[in-house]
Amino acid sequence: MIDDRFVTLAHGNGGRFMRALIDEVFARHLANPDLDVYADAVPLTLPAGDVLITTDGFTVQPLEFPGGDIGSLAVHGTVNDLAVAGAKPVYLTLNAFIEEGFEFARLDRIVASLARAAGESGVRVVAGDVKVVARGEGGGLYLATTGIGVRRPDLHLGLDRIGKGDAVLVSGPVGDHGTAVLLAREAFGLRGELASDAASVLPLTEALLDLPGLRFMRDPTRGGLVTVMHEIAAACAASVVLDETAVPVRLPVRGVCEMLGYDPLYLACEGRVVAVVAAGDAPDALARWRALPAGEAAAVIGRIGQGVAGQVLLTTEIGGERVLEELEDDPLPRIC
Amino acid sequence: MIDDRFVTLAHGNGGRFMRALIDEVFARHLANPDLDVYADAVPLTLPAGDVLITTDGFTVQPLEFPGGDIGSLAVHGTVNDLAVAGAKPVYLTLNAFIEEGFEFARLDRIVASLARAAGESGVRVVAGDVKVVARGEGGGLYLATTGIGVRRPDLHLGLDRIGKGDAVLVSGPVGDHGTAVLLAREAFGLRGELASDAASVLPLTEALLDLPGLRFMRDPTRGGLVTVMHEIAAACAASVVLDETAVPVRLPVRGVCEMLGYDPLYLACEGRVVAVVAAGDAPDALARWRALPAGEAAAVIGRIGQGVAGQVLLTTEIGGERVLEELEDDPLPRIC
Repeated sequence: MIDDRFVTLAHGNGGRFMRALIDEVFARHLANPDLDVYADAVPLTLPAGDVLITTDGFTVQPLEFPGGDIGSLAVHGTVNDLAVAGAKPVYLTLNAFIEEGFEFARLDRIVASLARAAGESGVRVVAGDVKVVARGEGGGLYLATTGIGVRRPDLHLGLDRIGKGDAVLVSGPVGDHGTAVLLAREAFGLRGELASDAASVLPLTEALLDLPGLRFMRDPTRGGLVTVMHEIAAACAASVVLDETAVPVRLPVRGVCEMLGYDPLYLACEGRVVAVVAAGDAPDALARWRALPAGEAAAVIGRIGQGVAGQVLLTTEIGGERVLEELEDDPLPRIC
Repeated sequence: MIDDRFVTLAHGNGGRFMRALIDEVFARHLANPDLDVYADAVPLTLPAGDVLITTDGFTVQPLEFPGGDIGSLAVHGTVNDLAVAGAKPVYLTLNAFIEEGFEFARLDRIVASLARAAGESGVRVVAGDVKVVARGEGGGLYLATTGIGVRRPDLHLGLDRIGKGDAVLVSGPVGDHGTAVLLAREAFGLRGELASDAASVLPLTEALLDLPGLRFMRDPTRGGLVTVMHEIAAACAASVVLDETAVPVRLPVRGVCEMLGYDPLYLACEGRVVAVVAAGDAPDALARWRALPAGEAAAVIGRIGQGVAGQVLLTTEIGGERVLEELEDDPLPRIC
């Protein structure tokens, strides 16, 4: 480790201190045969198939929370965007914006967690960049990751493949990540048992890839389940009807949400997948997910309906129907 | 444009406002056939050759300065990292971290500039992500770009190819970017004619690619020319000897640096290339650069020497020799 306990502006200036920061924190944890921290650009060895790219920024507060931290989240978030597109994630790049005064021990812990998540997800960090911003001009640490993955060329998934009557599935309980981060914020003065669901969804997405009726997958992050439903309803000019009793929500999540006035259907997940499949394939899809540890609580939660185009409806426990509006105000900023 | 004049936290929450921000600012300027703002991951069509990746973060202050802004810089910085590696840049991804309260008109101006720079550099922005952070936890706007380029498979450039006796060239005057950003900071109460050299260096790098004696190229950004020389000296276990009278520095840059106590050899360029070539190829390399508008002031500035390994020396105007130390303290933070 570097002598000083805290990151200074000099650690971002391109000189000796920056090299030490990169060598002793980033390269130490992220070392792999493809990472060359002194190259301007790094060659990629890509398996056969279509090459996909995605990118995501991370500003979660607090930086560490039950079930994860900004480091593991920055891996899982980007890995999952590739996974739901049907790709196998292969490479990541990493940007860090560190606020002056950030504790080295904490940075080290977060980068170690990031490296662990990358290893578990089968991706290599091959390029990175570090900037240090002045005290009071950052939130401690912001990360951005860009992911490269490879997809079978004959795989066609997309919003345009969805049709009326198709079934909507979710791989597990919704709202865990949002609620866990919420409880981790000191401002609420609460402590709970709840952990984020943050994880790679690759086992879940790969389980469905050879299902002929698989139309579309997405991970319900910012804006939660309802936001994905609105994206589907808008793109397909159809309605989406969700069954309230079918949507899995953990009891403690429901409890915290009721107490604080949040709706778990709008809270972020970081380890769940929503899939749309042909109605006839729904039982098979469900069985495949339930056979996986991460999919034990998977459920068919709704269908693409015949109603007003763009509308998302919830059939309630008591048999009624209510419109789920698109998110406007931010219920919970800085969730990822 | 969106009704409100300023970005709010709701513009980062994944819902309707975020979609409007992405559609009306980012997608409007960056539209191209490969950009799909609703996809989790985007397929790339890659020309034949080795695929290279690079990533860079941008935190320059002020966000707009003579000769550029954080938007164009975010394109040029990443394009240039690919170019000096001998690649042709093809795709970019973009991350924006916007501080709550940022003016839409300014964001629009910066994204328009980014789009213009991408067009001029021949790259397409294919994926992006926007996060909004709370007031007081950002510097207005931070960007990160990741670039994908393609390189001729038989091209081998690298620090390991450099040998004693090789010549060191620079494509133009050094320190322009650093000085221009410095003067643009109100804190100094100065106004100058100086503009940043920020630009794509692709024409300069492509001009040398078929030169058999081309060993290595790098753009001297953070830490300036001397920092690149230290990277070379450290990697090659050789000394680097620069000729003070040969290094091009504009007169106003020299003047400002003398007045404020900076050394232009340590200040960032954003549109220059340092090349190391076999001594016998130096005249050819120089002629090729001088034939280009961006290379008119190119010069052979030094050589790989026989001296103490890792040392960077400057032979001075009066015939002396002094050691150029590696950068320690940050002479000018937030330069890119």
